[in-house]
Amino acid sequence: MAVMTFHDQAVAAREASRALATASRARKDAALHAMAEALLAGSGAVLAANARDVARAEAAGTPASLVDRLRLDAGRVAAMADGLIQLAGLADPVGDVVRGWTTPAGVSIRQVRVPFGVVGIIYEARPNVTADAAGIALKSGNAALLRGSSSAIDSNRAIVAALRAGVASAGLPAAIVQLVEGGREVTAEMMAARGLVDVLIPRGGAGLINAVVEGSVVPVIETGTGNCHLFVDASADQAMALAILLNAKTQRPSVCNALETLLVHEAAAATFLPRALAALSDAGVTVHGTPAVQAYSDSVIAAGEGEFDGEYLSLDIACDVVPDMDAALAHIRAHSTGHSETIVTSDLAAAERFAAEVDAAAVLVNASSRFVDGGEFGFGAEIGISTQKLHARGPMALPEMTSTKYIVTGRGQTRG
Amino acid sequence: MAVMTFHDQAVAAREASRALATASRARKDAALHAMAEALLAGSGAVLAANARDVARAEAAGTPASLVDRLRLDAGRVAAMADGLIQLAGLADPVGDVVRGWTTPAGVSIRQVRVPFGVVGIIYEARPNVTADAAGIALKSGNAALLRGSSSAIDSNRAIVAALRAGVASAGLPAAIVQLVEGGREVTAEMMAARGLVDVLIPRGGAGLINAVVEGSVVPVIETGTGNCHLFVDASADQAMALAILLNAKTQRPSVCNALETLLVHEAAAATFLPRALAALSDAGVTVHGTPAVQAYSDSVIAAGEGEFDGEYLSLDIACDVVPDMDAALAHIRAHSTGHSETIVTSDLAAAERFAAEVDAAAVLVNASSRFVDGGEFGFGAEIGISTQKLHARGPMALPEMTSTKYIVTGRGQTRG
Repeated sequence: MAVMTFHDQAVAAREASRALATASRARKDAALHAMAEALLAGSGAVLAANARDVARAEAAGTPASLVDRLRLDAGRVAAMADGLIQLAGLADPVGDVVRGWTTPAGVSIRQVRVPFGVVGIIYEARPNVTADAAGIALKSGNAALLRGSSSAIDSNRAIVAALRAGVASAGLPAAIVQLVEGGREVTAEMMAARGLVDVLIPRGGAGLINAVVEGSVVPVIETGTGNCHLFVDASADQAMALAILLNAKTQRPSVCNALETLLVHEAAAATFLPRALAALSDAGVTVHGTPAVQAYSDSVIAAGEGEFDGEYLSLDIACDVVPDMDAALAHIRAHSTGHSETIVTSDLAAAERFAAEVDAAAVLVNASSRFVDGGEFGFGAEIGISTQKLHARGPMALPEMTSTKYIVTGRGQTRG
Repeated sequence: MAVMTFHDQAVAAREASRALATASRARKDAALHAMAEALLAGSGAVLAANARDVARAEAAGTPASLVDRLRLDAGRVAAMADGLIQLAGLADPVGDVVRGWTTPAGVSIRQVRVPFGVVGIIYEARPNVTADAAGIALKSGNAALLRGSSSAIDSNRAIVAALRAGVASAGLPAAIVQLVEGGREVTAEMMAARGLVDVLIPRGGAGLINAVVEGSVVPVIETGTGNCHLFVDASADQAMALAILLNAKTQRPSVCNALETLLVHEAAAATFLPRALAALSDAGVTVHGTPAVQAYSDSVIAAGEGEFDGEYLSLDIACDVVPDMDAALAHIRAHSTGHSETIVTSDLAAAERFAAEVDAAAVLVNASSRFVDGGEFGFGAEIGISTQKLHARGPMALPEMTSTKYIVTGRGQTRG
């Protein structure tokens, strides 16, 4: 088919979103099941398309880790289908009455969850995001404009074709799932489409997210980069601190809730750091430390300029010794991206102060930052982890993909 | 004192916001009372400053209606003080636990309301907004950067000086209330201050709001223009429809929840329109109608190009006859600003369809749109009425001036 302009796609999405907004849960769940079936039935076509993307990436000399993120196999396609079926099992947020009351004038007010309408999702190479994002949008009643990476274009076209066939077979308009193609000017059109697109959600690295936040006139939900800190307090149970450190740093270093910086109270440093540095080294983690940390082990390499500001997303960690809680809080304030910040302590006042004063989506006391996740929170689905303060902060699930409206009902009341 | 640069003001606000974020309700309420007292004690200075603004406006040939909005008297100053005292009586949203649960891993999660931090408010001539906005920000734990109109600069300086004296006397940093002065380039700095300012709230006309939404990198909450419609359905109780029409149009025509457009079902037109047009004329309202409306009365002037798109904010109303509910919904979809939309009907299915399909902050069934207001909703305070879908939609009170954070507490749990 001829490729539509972005404007035509957005208009079609808005039109289709009206039918979706009032669709029953049963119809949406039927669509999710049909999308899963179509994806499995089209698995051969999806894998063939993906093989073309992978070959192109390899020919272009793309690093192996990125090629791996791009690559699909039968198991990954089945996992995408499974994700859609799981979404069908979750409660529908649309129509939930958030609160309701009657005013002294006898007017009845209900605040009810409604879909945003049209959601634009701008994301990087992983083609599985295409199915996840389309499914979460559909279940929350939103049409999805999916702006994937050009490196995954063949995979995304094949996945979207399957998803649209499923949507249409369930009696909903196929235009609720659309792939947005074209060059950078199309991303600019998406960011300018105020009134046609209700919200943009960038998913990817800090560069992509910043570009969307700074360039968009459409409201954006920032999903987050996580420069996550662990502060080991003077009173910490050091075995607990070590277990949390290793889990949060090494269990899955490439994700946003993995640990990037270790701060140790100087009263704990002499006992904790030698054990911690040895254990990190055994786990293959490179420690980038200040001189105060280097004093404890030759394995610590010098922390460079700006070392405390970024995400490694690898088996690396920045480390410093701080004289007290004030210094730990000041360090976190200066370097945090507001994702997930952890203290290990046995001192109640320290725990309460840290929880009260750290400004982040999640503050953890004596638990691994890896728990900050829609799945671990029990939400069943997650579109991302918001690090902004408006609308949603922390793991975003189906209710966070909705707005509300007030329904005000009277019997002819007028205002005096 | 020397005027600080905007950047210095924002840094000072952020620093001060940290003390405010953890201040007790008792301290915040004491500050609100002290602000009210300082405003009353400084009433002479405020009125003298206001007289200079008024004289300047009159000398510049400002229309009388705008001069009236600028003018303060002892009663208006007392009303500002009273507003601050009323805020002290409202519940503090900060610290509210929105929800809490324990995960299968035994990790306890609480979602807790926290202040945004620093709120920028950009507003037009009414100097009473200065005290209102500062008070609402303070009660919700936010430092306020107040960007008022240059036409009210002397009034705003005097009001802010009084408010800051009150804040300081209650032991909170005066930097939580600051007036932002300077030319247009300072508004641009505010809109670019991502990371220093957490949210911008423009309050004023459509031009101001659009300029902020389109120019800001800082997240914006749109408070709204209201092109509000009344649809009189075929089955409407016509006496009820007439009462709601007159109330919503004439009780206070200058506000955003006043009615701007009347749509009449053609099956009701022959009985309803003659009565409605006569009553509107008696109430001094000019009706701008299509030929279908003009057929009922010589008093109806022809609706011009774009007549259905704007807010009159005056004793004018646009009017059309529509063949059915579909046409009414299509008209509203094409022209609504998403504020408050009303149906008068006695048909349950029509009421339910209108409530489900109209995409607005508030949908009213058989009640005047004038009820869409923080005071009428029982919120006790209102910073504005949001017409956007993110974060808050409809009347925004104290809880809408907060974000949340997750506090995750364990006993050393790690993720498997």
